[in-house]
Amino acid sequence: MKSTIHRKVVMAKKGLLITFEGGEGCGKSTQIVQLRDVLTKAGQDVVVLREPGGTVISEQIREVVLSSKNIGIAFTTEVLLFQAARAQIYREIVLPSLEAGKVVLMDRSRDSSVVYQGKVRGFGVELIEQLNNLSTKDTFPDLTILLDVPVEIGLSRRSKTGKMDRLDMEAQDFHQKVRDAYLALAKANDRKRWLVIDATLSIEAVAEAVTKAVLKHIK
Amino acid sequence: MKSTIHRKVVMAKKGLLITFEGGEGCGKSTQIVQLRDVLTKAGQDVVVLREPGGTVISEQIREVVLSSKNIGIAFTTEVLLFQAARAQIYREIVLPSLEAGKVVLMDRSRDSSVVYQGKVRGFGVELIEQLNNLSTKDTFPDLTILLDVPVEIGLSRRSKTGKMDRLDMEAQDFHQKVRDAYLALAKANDRKRWLVIDATLSIEAVAEAVTKAVLKHIK
Repeated sequence: MKSTIHRKVVMAKKGLLITFEGGEGCGKSTQIVQLRDVLTKAGQDVVVLREPGGTVISEQIREVVLSSKNIGIAFTTEVLLFQAARAQIYREIVLPSLEAGKVVLMDRSRDSSVVYQGKVRGFGVELIEQLNNLSTKDTFPDLTILLDVPVEIGLSRRSKTGKMDRLDMEAQDFHQKVRDAYLALAKANDRKRWLVIDATLSIEAVAEAVTKAVLKHIK
Repeated sequence: MKSTIHRKVVMAKKGLLITFEGGEGCGKSTQIVQLRDVLTKAGQDVVVLREPGGTVISEQIREVVLSSKNIGIAFTTEVLLFQAARAQIYREIVLPSLEAGKVVLMDRSRDSSVVYQGKVRGFGVELIEQLNNLSTKDTFPDLTILLDVPVEIGLSRRSKTGKMDRLDMEAQDFHQKVRDAYLALAKANDRKRWLVIDATLSIEAVAEAVTKAVLKHIK
């Protein structure tokens, strides 16, 4: 009983930030919906967000950075726009929600920038992490779930939905580099927050693995 | 004759970047139009730009950052959006134009971020200059003209045009800090590129001082 009260006090001061990462077609959004339902049924106050986007202002930024019309966008502009959207979503939603003890589930966050821009585009991890610290106010996820899937499978899943945006149109080689960069981050496992799940498994099997890991963090 | 050829070769390799800085209502846009006409008549290839904006993508960013509807924009988001717009305009227009030997006249650039965000908002000059170096590819103006005007005069000029945007609505104290920060930058005169002009003078007198300074740089 005493420990339950103590736990509640801790949760009231700080919620839980869980990020989902991975390449195209790895199933992040499907898994986030499933996890949200499980956690909500378990009595948790859950907030779901996608990056970039999630607030009126960051959706406007998302539109600029992902519009297939903006083919001439410079890589550096892209880097800064993702960080601008992140700065807004953290200040408007993520940080207040964590402060209020909620569980925040994010479809991509700081590690997407590290992988896509720091590593694959070659801006360097150090620069991107500096920008991440600025945009997130030095906030790291408590748990980062990497849904890992071979590039061919991810892209073929994605193309079936018919929702290809500018980034999807990049060459397959790009997506292979993304996968390798994610796996390297998870292997280094800085802050012991990474969990790799084989996302070629069935939706149900992945959901089970996700739920198990998350409940361990909450309990 | 030989020196003329030599000068042309130098100009072909690198044009001239002139930025206009100053608080609201200091007359930047009026003076830029006048200077453009003088330089064009003198045979120079002139490009005029305003920040944020100037390209399709950076105008989209300008709309997000300056829309009076986006009152809830976080200061950090604002910092990053201005830099994103700058990254785009430098890569699409400023750097190629300088490379082609043109004279580029900019209504605000890196020093606006140093003043408004580094100094007045308190993000610090070091952080903003790091971001400036990222967005401009380490490019500094050859000449920066500060049109200096007392706050009351600037704001009263601006309100007559009826075009008040979100930043104009900030308190007068804010604008005083902006003026002081600009004057301090000009006094430090890093890279010997600053020129302060008393913008309470007539449009013609200011234009004469601007033209004189610019022609000295070109000749």
